[in-house]
Amino acid sequence: MKTSKEYKKSLQKMKPNIYKFGELIKDVTTHPATKRTVEGHAQIFDAAYKAEYKDILTTKSSLTGKPVIRYLSILQSADDMIANVRMKRLMFNLTGTCTGGRCAGFNALNAMWAATFDIDKDLKTGYHKRLRNWLKAAQEKDITVAGALTDPKGDRSKSPSMQKDEDMSLHFVKHKDDGIVVRGAKVMICGVAAANEIFVMPGTGYKESDKNYAISFAIPRDIENLTIVESRRPSDTRELENGFDTPVDIGGITQAYLLFEDVFVPKDRIFMCKEYQYTMNAVMNFVAPYRAAIGGCVAGQGDVMIGAAALMSRANGLSEKVFRDKINKMIINNETTFGMGIAASVLGKKHPSGVWIPDQLLSNVNKVHVATLPYDTKRITQDIAGGIAETGCLPSCKDINDPKYGKLLKKYLSANCSGETRAKIARLIEWLTIGSGVPGCMHGGGSADGAKIVINIKTDLNHYMDLAKRLADIKENIEVEPKKK
Amino acid sequence: MKTSKEYKKSLQKMKPNIYKFGELIKDVTTHPATKRTVEGHAQIFDAAYKAEYKDILTTKSSLTGKPVIRYLSILQSADDMIANVRMKRLMFNLTGTCTGGRCAGFNALNAMWAATFDIDKDLKTGYHKRLRNWLKAAQEKDITVAGALTDPKGDRSKSPSMQKDEDMSLHFVKHKDDGIVVRGAKVMICGVAAANEIFVMPGTGYKESDKNYAISFAIPRDIENLTIVESRRPSDTRELENGFDTPVDIGGITQAYLLFEDVFVPKDRIFMCKEYQYTMNAVMNFVAPYRAAIGGCVAGQGDVMIGAAALMSRANGLSEKVFRDKINKMIINNETTFGMGIAASVLGKKHPSGVWIPDQLLSNVNKVHVATLPYDTKRITQDIAGGIAETGCLPSCKDINDPKYGKLLKKYLSANCSGETRAKIARLIEWLTIGSGVPGCMHGGGSADGAKIVINIKTDLNHYMDLAKRLADIKENIEVEPKKK
Amino acid sequence: MKTSKEYKKSLQKMKPNIYKFGELIKDVTTHPATKRTVEGHAQIFDAAYKAEYKDILTTKSSLTGKPVIRYLSILQSADDMIANVRMKRLMFNLTGTCTGGRCAGFNALNAMWAATFDIDKDLKTGYHKRLRNWLKAAQEKDITVAGALTDPKGDRSKSPSMQKDEDMSLHFVKHKDDGIVVRGAKVMICGVAAANEIFVMPGTGYKESDKNYAISFAIPRDIENLTIVESRRPSDTRELENGFDTPVDIGGITQAYLLFEDVFVPKDRIFMCKEYQYTMNAVMNFVAPYRAAIGGCVAGQGDVMIGAAALMSRANGLSEKVFRDKINKMIINNETTFGMGIAASVLGKKHPSGVWIPDQLLSNVNKVHVATLPYDTKRITQDIAGGIAETGCLPSCKDINDPKYGKLLKKYLSANCSGETRAKIARLIEWLTIGSGVPGCMHGGGSADGAKIVINIKTDLNHYMDLAKRLADIKENIEVEPKKK
Amino acid sequence: MKTSKEYKKSLQKMKPNIYKFGELIKDVTTHPATKRTVEGHAQIFDAAYKAEYKDILTTKSSLTGKPVIRYLSILQSADDMIANVRMKRLMFNLTGTCTGGRCAGFNALNAMWAATFDIDKDLKTGYHKRLRNWLKAAQEKDITVAGALTDPKGDRSKSPSMQKDEDMSLHFVKHKDDGIVVRGAKVMICGVAAANEIFVMPGTGYKESDKNYAISFAIPRDIENLTIVESRRPSDTRELENGFDTPVDIGGITQAYLLFEDVFVPKDRIFMCKEYQYTMNAVMNFVAPYRAAIGGCVAGQGDVMIGAAALMSRANGLSEKVFRDKINKMIINNETTFGMGIAASVLGKKHPSGVWIPDQLLSNVNKVHVATLPYDTKRITQDIAGGIAETGCLPSCKDINDPKYGKLLKKYLSANCSGETRAKIARLIEWLTIGSGVPGCMHGGGSADGAKIVINIKTDLNHYMDLAKRLADIKENIEVEPKKK
Repeated sequence: MKTSKEYKKSLQKMKPNIYKFGELIKDVTTHPATKRTVEGHAQIFDAAYKAEYKDILTTKSSLTGKPVIRYLSILQSADDMIANVRMKRLMFNLTGTCTGGRCAGFNALNAMWAATFDIDKDLKTGYHKRLRNWLKAAQEKDITVAGALTDPKGDRSKSPSMQKDEDMSLHFVKHKDDGIVVRGAKVMICGVAAANEIFVMPGTGYKESDKNYAISFAIPRDIENLTIVESRRPSDTRELENGFDTPVDIGGITQAYLLFEDVFVPKDRIFMCKEYQYTMNAVMNFVAPYRAAIGGCVAGQGDVMIGAAALMSRANGLSEKVFRDKINKMIINNETTFGMGIAASVLGKKHPSGVWIPDQLLSNVNKVHVATLPYDTKRITQDIAGGIAETGCLPSCKDINDPKYGKLLKKYLSANCSGETRAKIARLIEWLTIGSGVPGCMHGGGSADGAKIVINIKTDLNHYMDLAKRLADIKENIEVEPKKK
Repeated sequence: MKTSKEYKKSLQKMKPNIYKFGELIKDVTTHPATKRTVEGHAQIFDAAYKAEYKDILTTKSSLTGKPVIRYLSILQSADDMIANVRMKRLMFNLTGTCTGGRCAGFNALNAMWAATFDIDKDLKTGYHKRLRNWLKAAQEKDITVAGALTDPKGDRSKSPSMQKDEDMSLHFVKHKDDGIVVRGAKVMICGVAAANEIFVMPGTGYKESDKNYAISFAIPRDIENLTIVESRRPSDTRELENGFDTPVDIGGITQAYLLFEDVFVPKDRIFMCKEYQYTMNAVMNFVAPYRAAIGGCVAGQGDVMIGAAALMSRANGLSEKVFRDKINKMIINNETTFGMGIAASVLGKKHPSGVWIPDQLLSNVNKVHVATLPYDTKRITQDIAGGIAETGCLPSCKDINDPKYGKLLKKYLSANCSGETRAKIARLIEWLTIGSGVPGCMHGGGSADGAKIVINIKTDLNHYMDLAKRLADIKENIEVEPKKK
Repeated sequence: MKTSKEYKKSLQKMKPNIYKFGELIKDVTTHPATKRTVEGHAQIFDAAYKAEYKDILTTKSSLTGKPVIRYLSILQSADDMIANVRMKRLMFNLTGTCTGGRCAGFNALNAMWAATFDIDKDLKTGYHKRLRNWLKAAQEKDITVAGALTDPKGDRSKSPSMQKDEDMSLHFVKHKDDGIVVRGAKVMICGVAAANEIFVMPGTGYKESDKNYAISFAIPRDIENLTIVESRRPSDTRELENGFDTPVDIGGITQAYLLFEDVFVPKDRIFMCKEYQYTMNAVMNFVAPYRAAIGGCVAGQGDVMIGAAALMSRANGLSEKVFRDKINKMIINNETTFGMGIAASVLGKKHPSGVWIPDQLLSNVNKVHVATLPYDTKRITQDIAGGIAETGCLPSCKDINDPKYGKLLKKYLSANCSGETRAKIARLIEWLTIGSGVPGCMHGGGSADGAKIVINIKTDLNHYMDLAKRLADIKENIEVEPKKK
Repeated sequence: MKTSKEYKKSLQKMKPNIYKFGELIKDVTTHPATKRTVEGHAQIFDAAYKAEYKDILTTKSSLTGKPVIRYLSILQSADDMIANVRMKRLMFNLTGTCTGGRCAGFNALNAMWAATFDIDKDLKTGYHKRLRNWLKAAQEKDITVAGALTDPKGDRSKSPSMQKDEDMSLHFVKHKDDGIVVRGAKVMICGVAAANEIFVMPGTGYKESDKNYAISFAIPRDIENLTIVESRRPSDTRELENGFDTPVDIGGITQAYLLFEDVFVPKDRIFMCKEYQYTMNAVMNFVAPYRAAIGGCVAGQGDVMIGAAALMSRANGLSEKVFRDKINKMIINNETTFGMGIAASVLGKKHPSGVWIPDQLLSNVNKVHVATLPYDTKRITQDIAGGIAETGCLPSCKDINDPKYGKLLKKYLSANCSGETRAKIARLIEWLTIGSGVPGCMHGGGSADGAKIVINIKTDLNHYMDLAKRLADIKENIEVEPKKK
């Protein structure tokens, strides 16, 4: 397995194709717009060598028997999924934010592991073997693989093939001798700047008319005809400055727009092409582990919020015990999404391909919590931290160090610690709750509304009605005629 | 293992010592105040013989290798605990309410399994062997064992030995040749009327001055000098009537006051006597599985509420889809307490005695949910069900069958089903949400406030502060002087 | 104005036509099923004479200039509505529950005051004058007038005239020389047993096909061919017993089913007959003051819950300060529904007929709070009060006074007060939170779902979109084609 | 009254003393860091001339009888307070954020109107007359007056005089011939950049030892020895750029640190000096109108969030009706804080000085809602708006207009409207929910925790206990001994 140094070197070797603010980023490991997310992902490599984290971050490859980072492994058991949940919590603890350049790719390759197995079984194709070969190579090179699922979509009331512009979802254009050409975009893709490759998933529930959109493949991030534009986030311009106004240097998040202008994908990297019937299951098998494990993510950032709020309490001269009930609520929020992730993991089932698929019902219940509870945790953090942190209500680092009035600012920012320390805590809380450290809990891994639909599908209301009828000794059959439209 | 018929016979053979409304209950299996809880507990025996439920309800005895009902087993693994959570959900599904005459006893014997092991190890006593012998016999006789923990306590600001009246918690009175004499009371004890024996736990956190209160033992329910008075519950008088105003005949709940007037406990049934140092752990090891598994209970009753609400929707002529979002919220509530119970089970640890102890942090987080979410589920049930169910706002069964005006009432109660069926659904919902079927989620298994204290104890705030300091690169040590009192 | 003694006498003079448990109630003032609600309503008369309450409960008649109880007045100003909100809070404070035999009637006569004015203006009918005459007489006799709105309705997916049975909503049958004949039922009608007359409102939003259902009138409670059956409530059988298991003797609630078997209504008591176009406004003008003022009701009972919870805290030996945060939340809940009632009152408008109509938007927002917050307040009350109160988990009054074991029960129920006092507090909390004192906040005055529809109707989303467009300088017009069905 | 042009001119005439990012701001009306807040405040002047807003924004001066902007008026009645709540909602509607350079000053002068009256009455001082003179002049000049209350405070466990550094709260230094010298700081002061003068309030509850901190006065913003440093807010650097990444140009918020380095305050501008006994009431009378009216603020911004969310729904091709329930919840949140503000206004009382003081209990209940509900409204806005708005997950305006790939970005951002319009809506939502438009609802006007203390103080628990005792006929007196420390 690579060291963090080797990891960074591998990124530096790639051809620049990422832009932000109109500028081509030459070296993602040093450019201020991307270096923090690279640092965050680099921590994975460092942590994998540490005795205390090793079991969480690494496992034995089911392909080669060699040690491998979990992000490139096949999830084979409940224990693997539990480790996944813990791994995500750990990485948020260590970076304060998302290392999304790995987890979506991890989920994508596992989802396609099952999908390609099913397609091959039914249609006698050879996708699964290709994926196996690709994965084996990926493990050997220990590459970082981002996952790309979300299409621009255009008008949400219409399917991809019904859009005015056929490119609104990524699609197959034509066959070439040894591969295919694809066009369109994937948007809001996390951690691409820190990745060596990108694993592309299709959208979901495609019908035959949309079969050109049913494509899955893996490509190098710097593949020809792919242009990447990073989106801007709250306060992201601060990352271009010096000083502590961006309080965290060892973690960061990026979300990119990937523009595919007739990108050629070689055959051995294609894992689905037009098999639209399998897109529903492919995406369902993506969201199950994603929505289970994301409970670990938000718990991990919640842990940091508890710590930051308690620190600010002390900085203000108050014991954190003053806020005991509030901190208690934060703990409950964190442990609920974490616990639900664990439960979904445990109650899963093994797919014939060998992949462990967490329980859909509990995973999607967890997604609803993940879209709700962290907002509450942030609110409480701001509540405890006071006005100074709520909207980052303190002068800039530059002002605090101003030769004319900086000394006074430091004096008035001090309390039960130095003004600079208190300012740093305030900036950390701003960053965590209303700044560029905020991950997208609401829509990351799909929306809560989507999760609610799965919850309804996975619940057998008739069974519950039968329980009620049995208890109250009701024999009459009660039906409602469906409404005519 | 017994059949439900043999179980009932075993109850009939016991000496009557249970009172309600000033009356001695001669036969708990037929008296209207107790027969429903007996029916509920009897369902356990029937279900244990059914193929679909067998694995949930029975296991192999770790003492004899023979099949045994789980309620008399030692929890040895995460899987045993998961089965426990599922078992509780199942029993609420089947009875609509609590079968509390088994689960507290089950938890108590497991908690004391660990406690006696520790006491013996430290103090070279022989409690663990006694408990093993008792349990072996209990398994052989397949008895139903209620658990008794709660003392009357008196003034909550004072410890047992500081009360004006020393009897306010159950206590050791004196040694006799072959046992001890105890006096005091245990209160609000569930399912005693359906039990053959009672397993008594001490209160918690006793200091040396309270050592006489550190007692644990098992006794036949009909032991001499024990008087049992059943408490009255909302609408319990209806249970003495005919008709469907008590809508469920196959389940019921009772909560008793046990008055110990110098009860003699033989030596081989004593599992703790004065070892006050072990009361804290004993009770902690009781609450961990209890507060994990109770998530299954409230989910199980929530399932019935969903069914009943959906039924009423149909009875009113409306598809349950009209209330999709509300039902979705009910599902989320149910699966959250269930899932947290599963997670606490999985993340537990094995005690040297062989008992699996669920994770304290997640168990206690779950207790807080259990004290909150079912209230929300009840509210939504009432919301969907309409005014007729909210406060049981319909005439009595007697009135509905009145020769003079009953026909009119039936007519006006009818909608998309007969008036009687709609009335039954309304009564079921009243029973579930504001009637005698309501279990005590808030304080059963201890209060949410108690759980919050455990949550605080089990959380390492300093670790979280260190995470925050590392992220924001803060070196300064920030301490707050403890306030002088 | 009457004294409470005269009020009771007036009830005793009426012809018995109220049944419960198959029994005709001869004297509502002494029969245990009805005497408590009569006592509650009687308190209104007593309080009206007390200096401290006089201004809240009485006003000057707009018809005669004489002092009159507010319940028989026309609401003419914001101040009148504020007094209404306060009056409701006061009456819950004094009775612990609903005095529903007055407020629905009060709202009905005000709503019809406006409706008859409009009908007469448009259609040159004489309803308004009739209503004025009736009201003048009502004020002179100082009668108690219940209000009846809810029809049985039958299948909720069909309008009254589309039901299998035309009687599922109350309807006009035929004209007679000096009046009309009506048939059907009104259900879940509060406080009829405490009323002299009943003011009947039509259902809402009727179309021409339903015009026979558009009827409004006032009748004596004991009119010929009207049969009244009281519904049963949680724990209502206790009201037939002695002792404190029904903890409150000076208040009570009843909800009746009124069966109209061809009841003749004289002409001068008819306020609407077939003018279906006015049913929507009539009911809207009913719900506006109702849903504003109900905020006072639930605040008033919430006040008692705070008091009862604090008492139990003390009874347990703990200062109520231990529960400061929880009590704070209860206060916030109470003051929110109260405050929203005040705000809706103030922002109302005067109808040309002289009636003050509270703001529809705020009234209906308040209805949603009223259907939610009291559940939270009850939960907190049970949280503070402990297991003994949660499900009324203590023996019956009869048991507590049992010659054999009552002394022991009293001892074990005692804490920082006598066992009997503690038992009474527990029963009061059971009664308030899960017993027969619970009013129907969810559906009383219509459901929260109905309120949400009004909220949507009363909100101009386009205005809000214009605000957003102006701020972000967006000129493009964005429309969505309505979906084809 | 001034025009917006004259207002801006008055700002331009002032001496520069405001810094941000180490730079002295020469002209607040044109500098990008301050021009938006100036624009926002300028809108007040424009709106005051519009027929539709005139009654909300202007009133008749109680001093001169001339028309005057409400922000410089004395609140004399409930109607004045209601207009205040409406005015705040309006200004958020028009600016999308806070115009805090007026409302705190408005509240401060009203609070000191009462305080100076009381001080003069008791101590025969001349503060009230001075304030009257100052106000008369302020009205004549139609100046904009910011209010300054919050001190740096230092260690929160110690009072001002017990701090290591006496300057941690603003304080009296010495008398001079015709005034006093003050030193210290006021922090997080809203809208100073848009103000002509600053009205300073003391902190609260000072004891005699802190009497030097009991000072109140009004000063020109550009007074000698006052240095002002603006704090930085999320994404504030975007304000220095061109394009729509800061989506709103007609409103903005600033929060300043005011550094008083021995500032001389002339006598006729001093309204309190050392009368520490009056600081409690002064601040209580400040917070009452503030915490009532702030309900209008957050409702006003909530209105814009509803509009923006509905717009995004349409932009995505979905009718806003799809999100009916969510929008309904947003409306309820908005109307609740607005309604509670109205209710607190109405239930207020007139102080002998003529100032109308809103009800403390309801004002402070509202503050708790204001610290909670807007977080929920923001969460729902992000829920409806999708991932693109949640964290502003789209490329910068510069990238969208990039000659190389901007066209593609615009294409992929388009849906049921142009890509640019959709981008603007996304940026508006980011700005409103996680950007520099977010006002500090949690701590603005003091914290929710402070409000809860007032709620507890203003509630008579004994009265509630007496209600409960009366209902349950409890005579026993139950007291708890205070705990010894």
